[in-house]
Parts: sequence; structure tokens; C-alpha cells
Amino acid sequence: MDSRQHILNKSEELKEDFLPHLSADPVIFGFDRNELKVLLLKMNYRQQWLLPGGYVGKDEDLDEAVIRILKERAGITNIYLEEFGVFGKKNRSEFYFEDFDHTLFHKQRFVTIGYYALCNPSRFKLIADAYSETCEWICLSRLPEIELAMDHREIIEKALLTLREKISHKPIGYNLLPEKFTLPELQKLYEVILGKELNRGNFYRKIMNLGILKKLDEQRKGGAHKAPDLYSFNKRKYTKALEGGLNTW
Amino acid sequence: MDSRQHILNKSEELKEDFLPHLSADPVIFGFDRNELKVLLLKMNYRQQWLLPGGYVGKDEDLDEAVIRILKERAGITNIYLEEFGVFGKKNRSEFYFEDFDHTLFHKQRFVTIGYYALCNPSRFKLIADAYSETCEWICLSRLPEIELAMDHREIIEKALLTLREKISHKPIGYNLLPEKFTLPELQKLYEVILGKELNRGNFYRKIMNLGILKKLDEQRKGGAHKAPDLYSFNKRKYTKALEGGLNTW
Repeated sequence: MDSRQHILNKSEELKEDFLPHLSADPVIFGFDRNELKVLLLKMNYRQQWLLPGGYVGKDEDLDEAVIRILKERAGITNIYLEEFGVFGKKNRSEFYFEDFDHTLFHKQRFVTIGYYALCNPSRFKLIADAYSETCEWICLSRLPEIELAMDHREIIEKALLTLREKISHKPIGYNLLPEKFTLPELQKLYEVILGKELNRGNFYRKIMNLGILKKLDEQRKGGAHKAPDLYSFNKRKYTKALEGGLNTW
Repeated sequence: MDSRQHILNKSEELKEDFLPHLSADPVIFGFDRNELKVLLLKMNYRQQWLLPGGYVGKDEDLDEAVIRILKERAGITNIYLEEFGVFGKKNRSEFYFEDFDHTLFHKQRFVTIGYYALCNPSRFKLIADAYSETCEWICLSRLPEIELAMDHREIIEKALLTLREKISHKPIGYNLLPEKFTLPELQKLYEVILGKELNRGNFYRKIMNLGILKKLDEQRKGGAHKAPDLYSFNKRKYTKALEGGLNTW
């Protein structure tokens, strides 16, 4: 069955079970080998890249919907998603399906709810759905070269801004770094998310001031240089900072 | 015309012009005479208090919709609104209109988009719409005693949490305080939003560290105590902190 026919067949089913006009788009960032990546699908139809988004069931809470969508479209489960923005321009999605007629479910106006998460990609085995040729972690540095459908580039940019703002007042790194890590490794994580180099002295001073790190009595052995100290997170203080924010009154 | 009949008459019009299943609810906080208030309507039907929410036009961007809704329902214009959360539980709103049948536009399932703003109430002359008996600024301290419709209490609480989180990393006070103010006045604003008393010494040290205040060569005269120094915001640094956040890497 060709990709056009697959979409047509799905349309009637979707009308039965899903709310019109409302969709959800998860932006899943992965930190892997010192690079920040985003999870994208390449749809058979049109061969453009898209976020693994979908629709909201008539009998389903919105929060349940986005979890189901991510599982169905990419095989991803057990991930904490946070809403970060709503994309409601009136013409944001209709043009994508312009070679179908107006009765197609997919072609109506959709207001989409953006959710984001930051994870370690090694946790997941990706499985693309029947709409898609492939499902992959794409480096942010490659985004300018690829074709993204609808307003999905704007949605990814807003998610990235939210992530950047978040690390200014919430700790980050737990579940992304190995249990024991060096300060240069933690600095690299911040640099990759912020998209800029940080001054080493300033970074060390600020990160130590947060009180979320525990210096271990061990060094990372085997490098050419002086063995750097290893650290781990002080789980209690890290959790407290997650709940309360780093810079509260 | 009674309130029930008014809702019935509106229903058919609404079906023509508005998207199903999608609404917007503005949570407008006002800081006035050392109290934090929220803008609520009391609907004729059922006599419960509600946020001044409404629906999204078929041919209207979501951002345009929320501005129009606030103007139509409360007479408020020229206010900067920020999206803070989406409320999408499947049964969140249907019960409110339980004594109507299922063909009523208002009675369908709505996923609502929450927007918030913080303003000086003296800027506005409130005008209630035809659905509502009154439109008022209600003190947060009075909320526990009043009857709020649907999940509007939860929506207000989430907006307040967002506001509290925001003042931990963005400056606040411009447009809410007079041009020249004392440090105790600024501290009161923070205390009212945070809902707790702050230690005076800590507050002064932290707020001065932000570098957003300019000490004036004037004192507030007329009190029984030593005349306190007056301050104003350094507009350039305030704006920079608004854009970048107070505690960036």
C-alpha cells in the first residue's frame, strides 16, 4: 500500500476515535556522546522530517494521549514529559496535506500542545510506526540541512529555549551523566544545551555554589593529563533544588 | 431573558463560528494596596465564580482569541499574556452544564489553554459580559470561601505557582510599583506573591545583588520613622534581566 493510500484509510478511523483540531507534539532531546540530538520521524508521504506527534482520543486525558503517541510512533516509554508551549496559528498545519481534499482528518486545523523531555538515548530502542520510513536521533547541528514539516522547526526552537531557561534555575545531569563524572564532563553537558562555550573558572565556581555536587575520593585514571577528580550528585540536595528551584527567595 | 435561555440561544451561534473542544482561560493577577487579587466573573447561571474564559474562532489564531476573550468578558485590553499550562482531563468541564442536553456547544469536552498576567488593577475599568452578573478583583485570601466552577481553582493554583517560579529568575515590579519606591514596598510585593514573609536582611542583599535597582538621592518623607531611601528600577538592566533571566550561566 502506498503512503497516500495509508493516510486515506486511516482518516475515517481517526474521525471516529479522536478529537478534531487538537494534537500533541513531543520534542525529545537526547544527550549522547557530547552531542544534543532530537527525536524525529521521516514520513513516507513527502519524505519530510517531523516530530513524533499525534491526536487526542475522545475518551483520553491529554497527558495520557502524549504518552501513548510517543509509544506508538517511536517505541519510547517511561519518560517524563513536560508541557512547554501551545502552537495555535490558524494556518500552521493544513498545507502539509494539500494534495488531499478537505474531508481528510489530518488536513483540518490543529492546535498542537508541545511537550519536551531530555533523556539518555541509550535507554531506548526506537521503533518507527507505519506512517514513517525511519525514526532517528538527529543532531541539532544537522537541523539546518534537513527539511522539517509544518512549523516543527519553530516548535523545536521553543523547546530548546525552554530547556535553556530551565537549566538556569533547575539542576540538570542526573540520568544523563554516568554516576561518577568529572567537572569538564558536566561543563560539556551545559555547553551542549546552551550552544556556547563557558568559562571554566566561572562554571566551576557557580556549579560548586549550588551545593548539589559531592566530590569523591577518586580520580578518573588513564588520561594523558593529571587525573581529574570525580564527582557525583548529592541526591538529596539535587532533588530539593529540582523541587524548589536553585535561586529562590 | 433568563440565564438558561441566554446560553441556549448562544449555542447555535457558537457552533457556527468557533472550534469545538478548545478554550482559553486567562488568569489575571492584580497587585493592589499590598494584596494579590485575581480577576473573576460570577455567571448568572449557577451563581458560581469563573475565570473570564472563552472559545477560539475557526478563523482566529489562538493568541488573538485569548486577547479578544478578555476584552469581551471583562473589558480588559492591552495586557501581555503568557501561556502557562494546558488542562486536558477528559471530564474537566462537562458537568458544569449538566442540566442541558448534549447538543449544547458549551457542554462538550474542552481542553483549555491557561494564560496569565500580573498587572496593576487601577489601569482597567472592568465591564462584565452578558453571561455574568459581575466581574471583580477577588483577593486570593478570599478564594477558599467562594465557589469556583469546574477545575478553575486548580488553574488559578497552577498560574500562581508559575508566577512564583518566575520571580525566582526574572525581575518583577515594573508597572506594579510607583516610579519611586522603598525597599520595604518592593519586599511586600515579593511577600504577597510568594505568600510568605521574607527575612529583611536576606531580601535586601539578594535584591541589591541583582543590580536592577538605582538608589535615588531622595527619601520618602512624612512617616513617623526615619525617612526611608527611595529607589527606582534601572530600566536597561531590568530589561536585560527580563530577557536573559537573573541567574544565567
